[in-house]
This record gives sequence, C-alpha cells and structure tokens, in this order.
Amino acid sequence: MRIGIVNPNTTESMTDEMVQAARAVADSDTELVGVTAEHGPATIEGYIEDLEGASAVVDMARNLSSDIDALVIGCFGDTGILAARELLDVPVVGAAEASFMAALTVGHRFSVLTTLDSGVPLLEDLVDAYGHTGRCASVRATGVSVAAGHGDREATRTAYLDAGRKALSDDGADVLCLGCAALPDIRDDLEDELGAPVIDAVPSAVVLAEAVVRLGLRTSKIRAFKGHTPSPTVGGPS
Amino acid sequence: MRIGIVNPNTTESMTDEMVQAARAVADSDTELVGVTAEHGPATIEGYIEDLEGASAVVDMARNLSSDIDALVIGCFGDTGILAARELLDVPVVGAAEASFMAALTVGHRFSVLTTLDSGVPLLEDLVDAYGHTGRCASVRATGVSVAAGHGDREATRTAYLDAGRKALSDDGADVLCLGCAALPDIRDDLEDELGAPVIDAVPSAVVLAEAVVRLGLRTSKIRAFKGHTPSPTVGGPS
Amino acid sequence: MRIGIVNPNTTESMTDEMVQAARAVADSDTELVGVTAEHGPATIEGYIEDLEGASAVVDMARNLSSDIDALVIGCFGDTGILAARELLDVPVVGAAEASFMAALTVGHRFSVLTTLDSGVPLLEDLVDAYGHTGRCASVRATGVSVAAGHGDREATRTAYLDAGRKALSDDGADVLCLGCAALPDIRDDLEDELGAPVIDAVPSAVVLAEAVVRLGLRTSKIRAFKGHTPSPTVGGPS
Amino acid sequence: MRIGIVNPNTTESMTDEMVQAARAVADSDTELVGVTAEHGPATIEGYIEDLEGASAVVDMARNLSSDIDALVIGCFGDTGILAARELLDVPVVGAAEASFMAALTVGHRFSVLTTLDSGVPLLEDLVDAYGHTGRCASVRATGVSVAAGHGDREATRTAYLDAGRKALSDDGADVLCLGCAALPDIRDDLEDELGAPVIDAVPSAVVLAEAVVRLGLRTSKIRAFKGHTPSPTVGGPS
Amino acid sequence: MRIGIVNPNTTESMTDEMVQAARAVADSDTELVGVTAEHGPATIEGYIEDLEGASAVVDMARNLSSDIDALVIGCFGDTGILAARELLDVPVVGAAEASFMAALTVGHRFSVLTTLDSGVPLLEDLVDAYGHTGRCASVRATGVSVAAGHGDREATRTAYLDAGRKALSDDGADVLCLGCAALPDIRDDLEDELGAPVIDAVPSAVVLAEAVVRLGLRTSKIRAFKGHTPSPTVGGPS
Amino acid sequence: MRIGIVNPNTTESMTDEMVQAARAVADSDTELVGVTAEHGPATIEGYIEDLEGASAVVDMARNLSSDIDALVIGCFGDTGILAARELLDVPVVGAAEASFMAALTVGHRFSVLTTLDSGVPLLEDLVDAYGHTGRCASVRATGVSVAAGHGDREATRTAYLDAGRKALSDDGADVLCLGCAALPDIRDDLEDELGAPVIDAVPSAVVLAEAVVRLGLRTSKIRAFKGHTPSPTVGGPS
Repeated sequence: MRIGIVNPNTTESMTDEMVQAARAVADSDTELVGVTAEHGPATIEGYIEDLEGASAVVDMARNLSSDIDALVIGCFGDTGILAARELLDVPVVGAAEASFMAALTVGHRFSVLTTLDSGVPLLEDLVDAYGHTGRCASVRATGVSVAAGHGDREATRTAYLDAGRKALSDDGADVLCLGCAALPDIRDDLEDELGAPVIDAVPSAVVLAEAVVRLGLRTSKIRAFKGHTPSPTVGGPS
Repeated sequence: MRIGIVNPNTTESMTDEMVQAARAVADSDTELVGVTAEHGPATIEGYIEDLEGASAVVDMARNLSSDIDALVIGCFGDTGILAARELLDVPVVGAAEASFMAALTVGHRFSVLTTLDSGVPLLEDLVDAYGHTGRCASVRATGVSVAAGHGDREATRTAYLDAGRKALSDDGADVLCLGCAALPDIRDDLEDELGAPVIDAVPSAVVLAEAVVRLGLRTSKIRAFKGHTPSPTVGGPS
Repeated sequence: MRIGIVNPNTTESMTDEMVQAARAVADSDTELVGVTAEHGPATIEGYIEDLEGASAVVDMARNLSSDIDALVIGCFGDTGILAARELLDVPVVGAAEASFMAALTVGHRFSVLTTLDSGVPLLEDLVDAYGHTGRCASVRATGVSVAAGHGDREATRTAYLDAGRKALSDDGADVLCLGCAALPDIRDDLEDELGAPVIDAVPSAVVLAEAVVRLGLRTSKIRAFKGHTPSPTVGGPS
Repeated sequence: MRIGIVNPNTTESMTDEMVQAARAVADSDTELVGVTAEHGPATIEGYIEDLEGASAVVDMARNLSSDIDALVIGCFGDTGILAARELLDVPVVGAAEASFMAALTVGHRFSVLTTLDSGVPLLEDLVDAYGHTGRCASVRATGVSVAAGHGDREATRTAYLDAGRKALSDDGADVLCLGCAALPDIRDDLEDELGAPVIDAVPSAVVLAEAVVRLGLRTSKIRAFKGHTPSPTVGGPS
Repeated sequence: MRIGIVNPNTTESMTDEMVQAARAVADSDTELVGVTAEHGPATIEGYIEDLEGASAVVDMARNLSSDIDALVIGCFGDTGILAARELLDVPVVGAAEASFMAALTVGHRFSVLTTLDSGVPLLEDLVDAYGHTGRCASVRATGVSVAAGHGDREATRTAYLDAGRKALSDDGADVLCLGCAALPDIRDDLEDELGAPVIDAVPSAVVLAEAVVRLGLRTSKIRAFKGHTPSPTVGGPS
Repeated sequence: MRIGIVNPNTTESMTDEMVQAARAVADSDTELVGVTAEHGPATIEGYIEDLEGASAVVDMARNLSSDIDALVIGCFGDTGILAARELLDVPVVGAAEASFMAALTVGHRFSVLTTLDSGVPLLEDLVDAYGHTGRCASVRATGVSVAAGHGDREATRTAYLDAGRKALSDDGADVLCLGCAALPDIRDDLEDELGAPVIDAVPSAVVLAEAVVRLGLRTSKIRAFKGHTPSPTVGGPS
C-alpha cells in the first residue's frame, strides 16, 4: 500500500523527519510518499498560513490522487482535511485527528502540548470540532515556536517536559499529544520521564491510515464530501 | 465610514447584487466597497471552493486594509473569516455570523435555508462552531444551486417558500436565515408569505459592521488573531 | 429612528449615564429615549431585584410601545428581555446579549467583569443560555458593588483593571465585556492599559438595535413570542 | 412538617386541585398550605404572565417564610424559583424540576406534554437549563390551553393520550411528564392506557420537598442565593 | 414501605453505617433492609471492583425483588444501577444520582468530595452522564482511601474539610456532595464549619426512593429497561 | 504481534465469525487469539447481560494478559472496556469505539444500525460518552435480534438495508456502523447497494489495535486506569 504524507509547509527537512518517524512504525510493505508544499509558508502558526497550507494540500492531493491508497495530513492543524476528503476517493487522515484517537485508546483525558500561546485557540477549536471537549484536559503552549523547536533541541525538550508535567499534575491529563508534527526524539524522552503515553502525530496518522485502508474503506461521497462539477475557475494557479 | 465587502467567488454580478442589497439598509454616510475575487471559483459550494475563496478573501483584505473601517465577508460560509481577522486590525464580520446574531434578536430558534444537500454539513458545522446548536432549528437544503438560483427566479422562490414553510411548521423555527449571499428579492416575498422574519445575509453583516465600528472596536491582537512575523514564503501568488 | 432604553432600576442618574454613553456612538439621526423604572430597587444585584426590574421593564415597554422602533434593555442581566419580546412587535435587544455579540466579532474568547461574586452564577447562566459557553473564558467578580462603583471611581478602576488583567493572562480571554451597565469612563482606561478590546454594554445594544431596525426586522410572532389573549388579571398594578 | 405550595396564578380552584393531588401522596404528618396568587393572571401561558406569577411567588414566599419547612412552586414553569431560593432559607422545589428528577429515576428519556405550541420554547429552555437536554426526548404541545383543559376533560384526555402515544413511539421517550400543574385524573388514565410511568408535577415536588427537609438541608447562602441588603425600593407594591 | 439498600462491597460494617444514617432521616413507617454483597471486593475504588460490585448488586436485587418497594444502590458510583432497573419493576435510586438531585434543590453548583485521585474520572463521567456537567463545580479527591477513611476519622475529617473549603472558595461550588457512602458523622462537621449544605449519599437516596414510591411510580419497561427473555446462560453463578 | 479478541458472550460460533472477519483485514504477521466467555449469556442484549459479559471480559483479559500485545472487545457495547484498561498494560480497543473512529475518517456523520429497539438507549449513551453526539446522525434498530440475525440471513439483510437506507436519506448519515459484532457478509451487501461506506466492528477494532501497538503505546497508569492493590475479595468466582 502507498500512503501519501503531505506537509503543508515548504520546509523539506520537516517532511523528511515526518516520513522517517512514520517509517519506524509503518508496516514494512507500506510505501510512504512524503511531499512538501511547493508554495506557502515555511511553518504554519496562524490562520493565514493555515489557509496557504490548505491550498498546498489540495494541490499535492490532486497530484497524488491516482497513485495512493490513503492520504495523511502532516500537520497538527489537520490543514485542508475536509477539502482533501472532498477531492479524493481514498481515505484522508489528519495528524491531530489520529493523535486524539490514539490517545483515547490508551488514556482517559489527553492534553495537547503545542508551540505558541497564539496557536492554542485554533487547536482548542479543533478539539471541540472533533467532539473531544469533554476528554481534553488542556491545550498547553510551550512557548517554543516551530523554528525554535528545530533549533535548540535541549531547550525545546525542557519546555515540553515542563508543560507535560503540568498537564498531568494540574490539568488531569493521563496521556499527552505532541501538537507539532516534527518532534520525534522528544516523544521518547517525555514518555520515559513522565511515565505517561505520549502520542507523536504523523506516525499515528500513518498507522491509522493503514488500518482504514485494510478495512477497504473509501471516503463517503453521499453528502458532505460529494463534491460537484466544479464551477468555472478564473485566474491564478489555485 | 468605509466598509469593504469581499465576494470570495469570481462572479461580479453577485458582488453587485450584494452591494445593492446592503446599500438599501446601510447608513447614507457609509461607503460600501464591493470587491470580487480575482481568482477562484464562480460559486462556492464545497470545501475546495471554500478554500479557494478564502485565499481570495485574504488577498482582497490585504489590498483593502489601509482604506477600510471594517470588512464584511460576502458569503454565507464566512469563508476565510479567521484569516482575515488575523490579517486586519479593523473588525471583520461574516455574513452567516451576522445573520445568526440578527435572527436571535428577533426570534427564538432559526432555520437556515441553503442551496444543495451537500452543503448542509458545512453550515451545520458553522452553526455549531458559533455556539448556536441549541438555537438552530434546522439547516434545510432547497435543492437549488447558486447558479440555478440566479437563473430561474420563480422556481427558486417556490423552493425557498416550501423549505421555509417546513422549517416553521415542522422544525420549530420562528425566524429564517437565507443561507446564500444573493437572494435579495426573495427575502421580502418569504417574509410576506410566511409571516416570519427573514434575514438577508450581507445586509445583516454590513449593519453589524457599522455598529461595531461605531463602538470604536478593533480586532483583538492578544491571542488568536495575533499573527506573527510571517515565515518566509515559497512559490506562487498565494 | 427612536430607540427606547429602559433602565430596570430606579436610579435615574444611571439612566442618564447610559443614554450619554450610547449617544456618543449612536447615529446622529437616532433619538434615544431613556426611561427609568418607576418602581423597584435602586440597583439590581440578585434574583428578586431582577424580577422586580423585569416587571418594571414590562411596564416601561408597554408605555413606550407605540412610539419606538426598538427597545434596549439597559441592564447586563438582560432583565425581562423575553417578556418584552412577547409584548412588543419591534425588536428588543439586551445589553449583555449585544455585548457578547460585539465581543465575538473582534475576539475569540471573552471574559465578563462584573460586580460581586454572588452575581457570577446569574451571568454564567446567561452566557450558557445564549450558547456562548465555549466562547466565554470566565465571568470574574471585581468585588465592587454597583453603588460602590459609582462612589469611588479610582478604586473601581483598579479593581476592574486587576480583574481584566487576570482574565487576559490566566483565563485565555482576548476581549472583555463590562458586566455592569454604567461604567463608561472605565472602558477607555481598560482598553488603553490592557491592549484588548473592551465592550461597554448599553452602547453595544443601541448600535445593534439600530442595525436590526435598518434591516426592517420585527420580533417573530410565530411561536415563542406569540403572546395570547391575556388571561383575566386580578389585583394590583402588574 | 409544613410545606407551602404557591400557585403563581390567581385561579383558586387550581390551587385546590394541586393540594388535593399532593395530599394523596404526601406523608400523613405533612401539612400542606396552598396559597393562591393575590394578583396576576388567571393562567400562566407566556413570558409576561410568567413574570407576573414570579412576582406573586415572591410575595407569597415572603408571607409564608416564617411558617414553613419547604416551599413548592406549583407551576410547571418553575416560576420565580431562583428568586424564592434567594429569599428563603428553607428548601424550594419546582414542579418541573421535581418532575424531571422523578422521571429520571424510573425511565431513561422523558417527554413533556404541555398545553400550547407557543409554550414549548419556554419548557425546552427549562429542560436545557436543568441539564436534561440529552435525556429529554421531546416537549410536545397538546393544543389544549389551561382553561380549555379544565373545561372539556374528555377532549383534554384524548389530546394528551395522543401526544403521549407519539412521544413514546416516535420520540423515544419511556416516561412522560405532565407539563401542566393541574391534571390529576388524567395521569392515571395515561399510565393505564400507555403502559409508561406518568409524572404529575406538584405531587412530585411535594414528596421531593419532604425528602429534602428530612435530610435537614437548607438553601445554600454561599453564592448564588446569598441575597444582600436590599437596595432602597421605590414605588408600588412589588 | 420496605426499601432495600444494597451495599455492593462485602464490608458489612459499612452496610450497617449506611442503614443507620438512612434510618435517622427515613419515615418511621419505612422499613430499611440493608444487604451486603456476598462476593466481591471489600471496597470499590476502581473499574474492576465496580464491575464486581455491580454483579453483586444484580444478585442482591434478584433476591430482594419480591419483598421491596424500592431499591437503593448504597455506593457513590451507582454501581449496577441500569442493570437493577432492567431487572426490577420497583424504582431503583442511586446514591450519587440522589445526592446530585438533592444538591441541586438547595444550591446552584455542587462539588463532589471523594477518596483517591484515581477515582475522580469515574465520578466525572457519572456527573456528565447524568447531565450535570454545567452544574458541577468540581470533583475533588481528598487523598483518603475508603479503608483509611474508616480508620483515622480525625485525619479524614481534616482532609474533607480542606477539600470542601477549596471547592467553595476556588471552584465556585455552593453545596457539597460526599462521594463516599459511609461518612455520616463527617457530614455534620463539614456543614457546621463550612456553612454550606453537605449531602450524605445513602440517606439522600433513601428519602428520594420514599418519594418516588409515594408517587406510585414503577420503572418504565417501554424501552431501555424492558429486558427480554434471557439468553441461555452458561457456566458459573452469574 | 498477538491480539486477543474476547467475545463477552458464550456463543463460540460468533467468536469464530469475528476472528474470521478480522483475519481478512489483519496484517499477515498478526496472530489473532479469539476467546469465548466461559460463563454468561448466549448473546448480550441488555444491561444485565452486559454486566455478565463484562465480568467474563475481565476473566478472559486476566488469562490472556501475559501473552498479548493488545486486547479487542468483540462486542458493540464495548462491554467491560474500562475494567480491561484498568487491568492490562497493553492497549484495549472496543469494537464500537473503533467503528466510530473509522467512520469519522471516511464520513461526516455516522448512523449505527443495531438489533432491537430496547438496545438503542445503551448505544446512544455510548455515542455520547465517546463525545460523538454531534457526529452521530442516528442509532436505528432493525428489529432483528442477535439470534434471529444469525438464523435468517435474508430477512436480516433486508432489515439492515432498509434501516441503512433511511439513515442515509432521512437522518443525514453518510457512513454506517454495524452495531452488532457478527454480520460480516452483510457489510459488503450494504456497501454495494447503498453506495456508502459500512463499518464492520471487530475488524475495525483489530486494525486499530495493530496501529496502536505499532506506535508502541501502552495504557496510561497515571490516573483513571491506575488500579490499586486489590481489596480482599470474598466469595464466588468473580
């Protein structure tokens, strides 16, 4: 089976890290096709960048569509997931969506550890939209931006440890989701030090996508994701 | 005061209709600046078109930003509203958001009358995201696409009357929202025939935007709409 | 257009302050008619006083009904709003309701700053009833009663600043609502010092009422606010 | 023990019926003190009448306060219940509140059968406010006004049977609440014919009040129902 | 009337304490039949023990069924309550369910004080399932296990006082529920020291059961609790 | 990897069917260990049978614990799932839980098709407890009991087709979950005839369990599923 992993930002090294982390858990027969956005922002940390990333997701999904068995959105905002479901017949799985599902099979209440305080509302809204309001203990910002997180790994590690510890002791969480798509080595550290399961987003999405493909499922075209004969389009590349 | 009305689709005649309908209710001192998307779909009736429209909204908002006192999203999906809030300091008001607010000042439970069945989930999710789940009686599809609605006005009128009647008698609504941004003449007919208030979306957003401007309010830059130094962007126009 | 502003308590100076604050933002063509309750409590800070105020609202609304285009409830509890909607054909807008709506067009999550701790539950219930549970960061008491608030303005200002600061930093709010109908000068101070939009209640309700009147809307008489041939009434003035 | 039953409307025959129905189930040592509103409407079927009734409830509660061990609100809208709790130290139990509690001890989802369609929203809001949204199958209007219900008992009985049957078969209810305070003889008929438990409101409230009194509980004066030194009051009897 | 109180754990002294506490508030004509589980754990502080207790509840309910007018589940987890309702025609009342109902008649928001932190999620889920999410201020662990609670009464008392004080001052509660079925003497101390009503679970359930029996209600057999001709059973005693 | 599939009822042929259906989708390297309850009911269609099945699940889980990498609850009620999570360190996945997760990756709103009307409330409560209230279009009974479903396959097929068709056309579903653990051949028929994805429960749980095992996750022992030194147990086999 072939699973496309689309990274909505234009930072290729992050795509590589995602694919590598997913490779470590995917079935050996699964081929992982990492694709990096050709246009848009270097990281996605706001609503505008999210839109730009979503536009890139649609483009990447269109290119991949004939070749893949499932698509994974490689970004914790599940950027462009509904549009991708409308576009494709194969299943589409989001990194956040899959993280929450994995978290709820091994814990009772999860917390999300994310980057900046300004990104918390977007994730809180995502948690609500997925129906997990009652099972989410908190969304905690570490104060580490995506770029910084890839710069100083030790400071990042400390910030995530600190936020994770508070989520477990103060917020009532018993499982943690890493709300950033590329922190593979931090996951193991957190799990070891905190003694709670820690969910890495893209790997979760990949194994969930494998599961859905094995079930023979395809995206429903009955109503929400039906699509329609596209309206004539004017102008630019989108 | 100058209010920008951005139409996320590329159909200029719809922009004209919106501005005309809004003109009829706006303060005489308010200048309305209608802008039509330069790229994207002719109508927005799905998630991909919604994304394309949102991208156009950001572009239009960026062009308008130094010249306006408020921005109105001229589309019932409130396409791109959060990105526009992140971008702008002036208030941003959505057509659906304003319709729901107006509806709830004159009725107890509203129904939305929209185009096709496949568009219902997107609007139901919007209602939920705005917190109106408990005050929304139903989202009803009329079966009339945007294009068709502008073609055969009589059939459109009949379909909306029929859906509106059912919303009032079967679903428990006492006020109706027209979930399509350009049906001005139908509003009066429905109100006359059904005896219930009927909300036209863009005019509602324009008068609400006027209200918020008069209050001297600006979009909060404290957290969700803070924005940040944009990441370096790669490639195309978006 | 003529908008009635009914103050459910008997303190005429508060009515004057409300009208003055609203005057500063209303359209110059709008006539504002402030009316003070002729019977009932000097301030409304509990359920019994709320009922007494609501009874006064009905009386004032009945007197005003033939002369106004919209009614504004000049009290953050939206005292008597449903009864006024049942009574009148013109739109009725509540000060809290309008504050929440204004807040949600310029922020993502609001906090309410109110007087005493004992009044918090009533406002929390109001927030819930309006469907804003998920968008309300907190209702915070300042510890300053209505009477005290009009006495020592400096202490009041400090208490509101302190509560507002905590709402923004600890509770996740990015916009503040002043949960007391007569604190106009404090609004500007808070906005300046805290850097977040601050909503003054009665002015918000007046501009929202103007907006709804411009839309030509009238209160729905289909179901909840239908009224009926009144039952024979026995005894007293009510 | 002495329990006051306050009827917020001025129809003394309804008070008599309530007391009689409650007498049949109350402990033989419990004294029931029925009080009829001295001012206000003959029946309560709208928001204004509800307010007038609430005002009467406060007056009656004030008169009774030194003599009773608990107060029962004898009206399915739980008219004035929060004000009465603020006023009194003894427990206050509402007829609707108690009906829902009784219903949920013997069934899984309840429906409310009430009078006119226009009264449904008020009861739906009450169900929501009490947190029973998920356990309430429906609020169904019988089309029989309070006055009519006391006129033609046979037509009333038929209308309630019909509504109850639909609630059980179409809405998923397995227990019914009579949403009108004075239909004692109909309760037994419905239970016999429909084979489901049927809850009569005032008797439920009386036995629940007995229970709370036996537990030695008093209304909490910690926060919501604290009251405060009343503001000076101006004018009329309220 | 005869009310069975089933203690799902095997500790007979706890049954005796429950019956004694209930005896103090029950009608003098009510006969209380305390029954202790013949198999299962000494205390119930986890999901497995809850299941074992539920199995014992079914056995005890089956034995009692021909002799009682109502059944009370003598454990704050309401262990086995739905199964008991399916089994019996008489009403079944849970200790937690009744506590919440009593709490909501005398306060606006309740907190639950329970034993260990690990038991909090089960109670939070129970609160949610009963629809009281919005009226529950907190579930607080005292850190005192059931066994310890019956050992050192003074330390237990201090721990409950401390947790109760925080619930009232920090969490917004105005009434407290004791989330453990056998702490009768602590209830009075808490109420005296904290000045808020404190609900003792089993006594609440007994007086509520008395109330429901007086109303002549029986468990609905229409849908959820219908039962069916049992499937053939294989093996052991269950 | 070894996955245990515990069938909480005593019908071995159903276990065989589950394992066979799961075998068709599981990884070829995964060993599936089907275990049938040694005591308890032949089918689980009520609360008492659910309890008995849960007790059997704990026994089976205890026996399997040292030998498996994950446990699947082979019953749509997710019988005993929380107790199994408390007991085991390896992940535990429920058939209903996994069905809902799979459904939400390929559709927007799901309906559950189940056996008898009396079983609908238990499943509605499960949907609510998992947070999917807003994404569940309906739970529909087919009227076919488990036993009947395994008897006359043609009548069963017709009943499921009919219920599925109504769920898609009347209730707004775009994906269906088979709420009974052993209807493998019906799944394909429904999918072909209705054109919507149809989720088979146990296979979904098995592939989700594989996914979670690949992620290296273990059940969190931080709070809800911590367990504790068991209390001394008295009596029988449970």
